[in-house]
Amino acid sequence: MDFKFFNKKKQEDAPPLPERTSTDSEELFCYGFDASSMQGTPSAVVRPVTTDEVVQMVSFAHKQRKPIVPRGAGTGMTGGSVPLKDAVVLSLDSMNRILDVDEKNMVAVVEPGVINGHLQEKLEAKGLFYPPDPASMNFCTLGGNVAENAGGPRAIKYGVTRDYVLGLEVVLPDGRVMMTGGKTFKNVVGYDLTRLIVGSEGTLCVVTKIFLKILPLPGETVTLLCTYPALNDAALTVSKITASGIIPRVLEFMDKASVSAVEAYGRYGLPPDAEALLLIEVDGSKASVSEEVDRIASICASLNGRVSIAEDIFSRKRLWEARRAISPALYRIKPSKINEDIVVPRGRIPEMLQSLRDISEKFNVKIVNFGHAGDGNIHVNVMTDKNDKDEYERAGKSVKDIFEAVIRLEGSISGEHGIGLTKKQYIGMELSETGIEIMKAIKRAFDPYGIMNPGKIFPAT
Amino acid sequence: MDFKFFNKKKQEDAPPLPERTSTDSEELFCYGFDASSMQGTPSAVVRPVTTDEVVQMVSFAHKQRKPIVPRGAGTGMTGGSVPLKDAVVLSLDSMNRILDVDEKNMVAVVEPGVINGHLQEKLEAKGLFYPPDPASMNFCTLGGNVAENAGGPRAIKYGVTRDYVLGLEVVLPDGRVMMTGGKTFKNVVGYDLTRLIVGSEGTLCVVTKIFLKILPLPGETVTLLCTYPALNDAALTVSKITASGIIPRVLEFMDKASVSAVEAYGRYGLPPDAEALLLIEVDGSKASVSEEVDRIASICASLNGRVSIAEDIFSRKRLWEARRAISPALYRIKPSKINEDIVVPRGRIPEMLQSLRDISEKFNVKIVNFGHAGDGNIHVNVMTDKNDKDEYERAGKSVKDIFEAVIRLEGSISGEHGIGLTKKQYIGMELSETGIEIMKAIKRAFDPYGIMNPGKIFPAT
Repeated sequence: MDFKFFNKKKQEDAPPLPERTSTDSEELFCYGFDASSMQGTPSAVVRPVTTDEVVQMVSFAHKQRKPIVPRGAGTGMTGGSVPLKDAVVLSLDSMNRILDVDEKNMVAVVEPGVINGHLQEKLEAKGLFYPPDPASMNFCTLGGNVAENAGGPRAIKYGVTRDYVLGLEVVLPDGRVMMTGGKTFKNVVGYDLTRLIVGSEGTLCVVTKIFLKILPLPGETVTLLCTYPALNDAALTVSKITASGIIPRVLEFMDKASVSAVEAYGRYGLPPDAEALLLIEVDGSKASVSEEVDRIASICASLNGRVSIAEDIFSRKRLWEARRAISPALYRIKPSKINEDIVVPRGRIPEMLQSLRDISEKFNVKIVNFGHAGDGNIHVNVMTDKNDKDEYERAGKSVKDIFEAVIRLEGSISGEHGIGLTKKQYIGMELSETGIEIMKAIKRAFDPYGIMNPGKIFPAT
Repeated sequence: MDFKFFNKKKQEDAPPLPERTSTDSEELFCYGFDASSMQGTPSAVVRPVTTDEVVQMVSFAHKQRKPIVPRGAGTGMTGGSVPLKDAVVLSLDSMNRILDVDEKNMVAVVEPGVINGHLQEKLEAKGLFYPPDPASMNFCTLGGNVAENAGGPRAIKYGVTRDYVLGLEVVLPDGRVMMTGGKTFKNVVGYDLTRLIVGSEGTLCVVTKIFLKILPLPGETVTLLCTYPALNDAALTVSKITASGIIPRVLEFMDKASVSAVEAYGRYGLPPDAEALLLIEVDGSKASVSEEVDRIASICASLNGRVSIAEDIFSRKRLWEARRAISPALYRIKPSKINEDIVVPRGRIPEMLQSLRDISEKFNVKIVNFGHAGDGNIHVNVMTDKNDKDEYERAGKSVKDIFEAVIRLEGSISGEHGIGLTKKQYIGMELSETGIEIMKAIKRAFDPYGIMNPGKIFPAT
């Protein structure tokens, strides 16, 4: 689909929604990349505002066998919304209404363009709670969260996006509208299409409405910061806390390089001499929170951790700003980073951190680690400079070693960022040929002409 | 596949595993029905003990285009394991080893024939916890739980089987072995085949190994029994408890008829004059449990409920025996029951109970209700006598009205029992043609020759 395609004269070939369509080169540029810093160029950007408009656009693309890329806020880390092959970007950011907050049934119904943080705010004001909180929550859309099955720090206790999606309205690649699931917390009528579509990275259909399970807001939340003179003590603390029967709502890890980067970036008051840091949060009733805080503090102390408790909302917010600043802060160390999102069984974190140190030495590259230790989900950042060709090459090569270590430790090469473009060449390391074949057959069942976000997830064959 | 098929002389056509195969008519009879009381007759029963034996049998069936029905303990309520078309029953009950309880990573690895309750016992002895607890937990297999996405009373707090399955080893209909997911709590590498296979009722593949997420055993559990002089007060209590921010681990409901049936059956000490009864359980730390028990007791009392607390393990066990006895006890009222497993958004339970009273009157049939009120998941039992032709016909007709009420209230016609044979004629009430078409296309992607548990879920077209 190219410019000419959008300027065709014949009535029956004219694309729908001209008033929603832009082919300005500035816009095409802006909608050509995402947080992965991959770059494509769409042939047009279309911004539908209703399901019916999505149907019109998708039906047209289907008839013309032209590729479509659904897109939220473009905060994805693996290039899932980067358009290939002159695709049309279908930006859902204008479908941004919270349609219903049904307190009686504890269900929120939203359009895909609603910003995650906006829903959170609206719910919290009513004493309600939507747990998934990706670091980009103030920018990313719930539609994007569904496409990528987004996680976040609270996943250790509350799970990921998939655990909250009860139902979907979607537009299939041929323009048909389909409902899956609905407002009930249980449903075993036929195959679970809802959870198949969650995490499918826009390759199966376009999501136009989302039914989300919501929870009551926990009564009490306390945040602890624990700093360590040795990395391994922090890793052991993670195992010891989870083995103790406490499930904290957050159990985040930052290594020394992350802490230094964040402090250089914003002076958040983190101790720059610590070798590692844990950010821990517990929630629940006042009684249970105070009991759990005591137990956690004594576990941390027994492993040489220095504990401080964020007493007020102000200091808690400051800690979270520091945590969310890691990703931008890392660019102070080096202008480029290769960002991986690995996950290992929780008990194997110490082995994984050791492997990362070995790989860092072997390739002579700086590797910075932080993330969701409670889940075994570590964000591994290989720091590099694209202009230093030799270093950049070494950094690129280290990725395969990192993934090999992950697979050896029974882990997964992506915990919450998806595969998109940047990891597709590696999926064969984790999935068997049979698994990939079955997935491709499912893709064909939804999208026989391959118009829906082509070139993503699966390596070219 | 018939007897002759199993006695073929030509070497290449001879079925594998003769030592695991039975064609005795008694066995064929026993493996022909399940808890739905539907009856079929398999051409043979094969009991593999290894994945490789499953591969041999499935490959053979694939080559011969002969149907196969995977089966656990046959406790399913909708005929999912009843063999049609002289299928071979592949009974997984001999693959019953708990392969690993990995405490460090909080993962259990089991074969499909492991009894749910056996795993529970083994885990509890180690201070660990596998929450899903279908009423048949002392008999049903984990493979069957996976096939049906089994729930149970604890689902309100802890979710259903799907929420605990991290990965699967399966044998595809052409005999290939495929791994999905694994030991990690997060994984977004390609489509989520794991959760697609959970709940697919043996129509996509044979599950041969299951990776289950396990939790620490909660420190404290308290059980409350609350009886009501009016049904509606019990329903309001459910809404009020959940709106209060407490998530009990159990919130079960029994109507008067269920209570009377159970008391007539076993003298469990339930008050036979109560119009409704709630069985409530909370768990967690000692401090939070005691706080929540107080709050729940005061909510119950404010709605005319009489609360008693099961102080010791003995009285708690007795209450649970009563709850689990409902299903057999109902046969004291009438020799047959049509058992439905509906679910509505939680806040709509009072409307649903009213609809059920109206339908009971309209068709002049006794309807007994109990179940997981906290989830909106009610087990509706239309009591009848097959020998009373007129009544049996009226009972059968009432089902459509029940499902119509469910759909009107934005509910689902099956919460945890699946579709199998008994509900397949109704799935069009809930799913669109498009939805059914996509599901069938997925079925073909796995099973192009339709040998895997044919005739289930989808109505004949």
